[in-house]
Amino acid sequence: MSKISSVSGFPEWLPEQRIAEQWVIDQVREKFELFGFAPIETRVVEPLDQLLKQGETDKEIYVVRRLHASEDEDNTGLGLHYDLTVPFARYVSQYRGQLQFPLRRYQIQKAWRGERPQEGRYREFTQADIDVVAEGELPIAADAEMPMLLYEVLTSLPIPPVKLFVNNRKILDGAYRAIDVVDVTGVIRIVDKLAKLGSSGVGQLLVEQGGLSPAQADLCLKLAEIRTADSSFADRVRALGLSDPVLDKGLHELTFVMDALHEGTKDFAVADLSIARGFDYYTGSVYEGVMVGHEALGAVCSGGRYDNLVSVRGKPLPGVGVSIGISRIIGRLFKRELLVSSRKSPACVLVVIQSDDQRRAAFATARTLRARGIATETYLEPTKLGKQIRYADQKGIPFVWFLGTSPDGDDQVRDIRSGDQFSADPERWLPPSEDLKPHVSLRST
Amino acid sequence: MSKISSVSGFPEWLPEQRIAEQWVIDQVREKFELFGFAPIETRVVEPLDQLLKQGETDKEIYVVRRLHASEDEDNTGLGLHYDLTVPFARYVSQYRGQLQFPLRRYQIQKAWRGERPQEGRYREFTQADIDVVAEGELPIAADAEMPMLLYEVLTSLPIPPVKLFVNNRKILDGAYRAIDVVDVTGVIRIVDKLAKLGSSGVGQLLVEQGGLSPAQADLCLKLAEIRTADSSFADRVRALGLSDPVLDKGLHELTFVMDALHEGTKDFAVADLSIARGFDYYTGSVYEGVMVGHEALGAVCSGGRYDNLVSVRGKPLPGVGVSIGISRIIGRLFKRELLVSSRKSPACVLVVIQSDDQRRAAFATARTLRARGIATETYLEPTKLGKQIRYADQKGIPFVWFLGTSPDGDDQVRDIRSGDQFSADPERWLPPSEDLKPHVSLRST
Repeated sequence: MSKISSVSGFPEWLPEQRIAEQWVIDQVREKFELFGFAPIETRVVEPLDQLLKQGETDKEIYVVRRLHASEDEDNTGLGLHYDLTVPFARYVSQYRGQLQFPLRRYQIQKAWRGERPQEGRYREFTQADIDVVAEGELPIAADAEMPMLLYEVLTSLPIPPVKLFVNNRKILDGAYRAIDVVDVTGVIRIVDKLAKLGSSGVGQLLVEQGGLSPAQADLCLKLAEIRTADSSFADRVRALGLSDPVLDKGLHELTFVMDALHEGTKDFAVADLSIARGFDYYTGSVYEGVMVGHEALGAVCSGGRYDNLVSVRGKPLPGVGVSIGISRIIGRLFKRELLVSSRKSPACVLVVIQSDDQRRAAFATARTLRARGIATETYLEPTKLGKQIRYADQKGIPFVWFLGTSPDGDDQVRDIRSGDQFSADPERWLPPSEDLKPHVSLRST
Repeated sequence: MSKISSVSGFPEWLPEQRIAEQWVIDQVREKFELFGFAPIETRVVEPLDQLLKQGETDKEIYVVRRLHASEDEDNTGLGLHYDLTVPFARYVSQYRGQLQFPLRRYQIQKAWRGERPQEGRYREFTQADIDVVAEGELPIAADAEMPMLLYEVLTSLPIPPVKLFVNNRKILDGAYRAIDVVDVTGVIRIVDKLAKLGSSGVGQLLVEQGGLSPAQADLCLKLAEIRTADSSFADRVRALGLSDPVLDKGLHELTFVMDALHEGTKDFAVADLSIARGFDYYTGSVYEGVMVGHEALGAVCSGGRYDNLVSVRGKPLPGVGVSIGISRIIGRLFKRELLVSSRKSPACVLVVIQSDDQRRAAFATARTLRARGIATETYLEPTKLGKQIRYADQKGIPFVWFLGTSPDGDDQVRDIRSGDQFSADPERWLPPSEDLKPHVSLRST
């Protein structure tokens, strides 16, 4: 091994961290499935021309080609996907005849972007996405389901609370149109920087880069400053005196989404008219969540409604979805040592051996314990007992099993945390349920 | 979407197939953890020079680079990993100070090889690997554990039975040395084609390409023809009259591995002295499993002992491991429609709605059912009931929930398979346990 080093932006975790990451992913998956979302996985590559068509990510794409590819090989124009939405849109078009609509799918996979690595921004990262896509109309009820689902998923994780901001692009589009903004997308991109640059910074940009008059910029900012915990945002928008049918539609949709939220989500989701999201393909609801106390990290989940991203033979299939940034969340928590696993191994029991001829008995005992669902490792050689027990301790394996050590020849098991040791039968013994598997938790600071 | 098409060798599955794949992966993972293997995941890229050092895979590597990378960027020499062993070896070296040895890790990830796609050979595929790596000596007990673990894993899956062939490279190395073979690796590679080419084909190659005399070739073939269900292979090797200390060590090790197997594995593992495995880095035990009735597919699991693959500051860390070819197994079974999921959605219940004002009640009922672990979807609009029920039927969702339809205003639930319908309370109703989640099974032919 000549060159052993990290590759910047491609994070790797220790086993105890991977246990925590899997715990998080398992929880996410369980909740997704409870909502009736079916899993899919897409290949990691997409044709380059597809990847280059969407949004602002052209400079960040990784190209993939065979080392000895011939020039005319059709696979030369491939790149790693930079999100899971573009591959999903392609998947829906490609397999449409074999899918049932409305299609509810989840997808937990890695994606790659060649951006400059920094905290919360990796070049290789894992995302957990859900989307609903319909043939014909997709009711606004689908948009209302997203915050409910995010609430269930995110509150089930051992992470700090997440605050979700919800908006609707039609409100922005309609309001900007009502005040005669020409480059709506350009203005949306500038307003999207509000959290970063503040009101005055964005106001200045709107005039200088966006070409707005000070009065137009002022209205954009007034709109962006509206944030309510319920659907009262609508009255505040109407108070601005704007009139536009698309604006009205947006207000109606966002009102539906906010009104559908149940009591439990009161502190979770708020309507925030500054939220825009960068991608061009959003046409209605947009969502963006931040981890409370970690706002500078940026969005840990986001998504929205896209009515024209997926199409088959010219006919669009409307969709709505959200994405949870698994790597961004756990990367931050690992760095701060906030997300911790109770052990470095799934093993609950280590069977120790004191002579070569105990090996077969050790294997048999381990087999018995495993058949009863107790994760068990056997020590591989009869070294000093102290060394074997220290090994269990280092990995956080809570129980050590001794073969035939009791006065009447029974096996014994020791809780190495307390030192308690007692006779035990591998056919009957059970650890306390909280010791059966590693436990992952958020450390309070 | 201009170009919607498959990319040759990059398989994708429908939701019901992905449910089956996840079922398989979950089972594998559960068994790995029962044996006390801890999870890790490595980045998908490795430095190209590392990837080019091992084995015969140089032509098959995918190079990865940023679309707009500058020439001097240090990330330009990266490739996608073609297996999980080389990245694992690098991981162990890189994080050694933070790991506990013997390290028992599992890793279930994709890998990429630019080979010509054919059945069972994908360019993108998922593997499930386990390895044990020690500082200092790694006892032969670790080699003996691999077939036991493979037995537990593979018999728990809804796949045809697997037959495992076990050999030891030292037997081949020692025997070939005893008959004065010069290019041991070359001869091993030829003998490895026995299943493909047959005795006479290999015999001819050994003479023509391997440069052996007919007598040497004959002994190589005689050795390769030894296959026993227990450790009686050793007597048959000794009967060939060969003498070499490395051969003796190999016989001793393989005897240990075969003798450690318990009764249950009798039909599972056999000693087969023709098994060699292609990679150069194996130094002792080698394993290779085929699916009974699908032998032409090639190995569905394989691995071996490598004493010199992993090293830190010139000191080797011996290891042993096996890899299960998830994509190869399920790809074959999907193609033959042998591996099937009972439904296309994780949902157990579909809550239907008959008017717009039932939406909030539908969301609340779904929430109650989900909180009790019952995967529930709500239909998104009050279309014709027949359409909503047909949708449940198409996805294989077994139960449809009606809000307040009983004469006394209670909810009702219908098993759409039998048509049975009865009053139900979302706080109390439970589906039969076999209906709670999709069931994945091997279809008998």
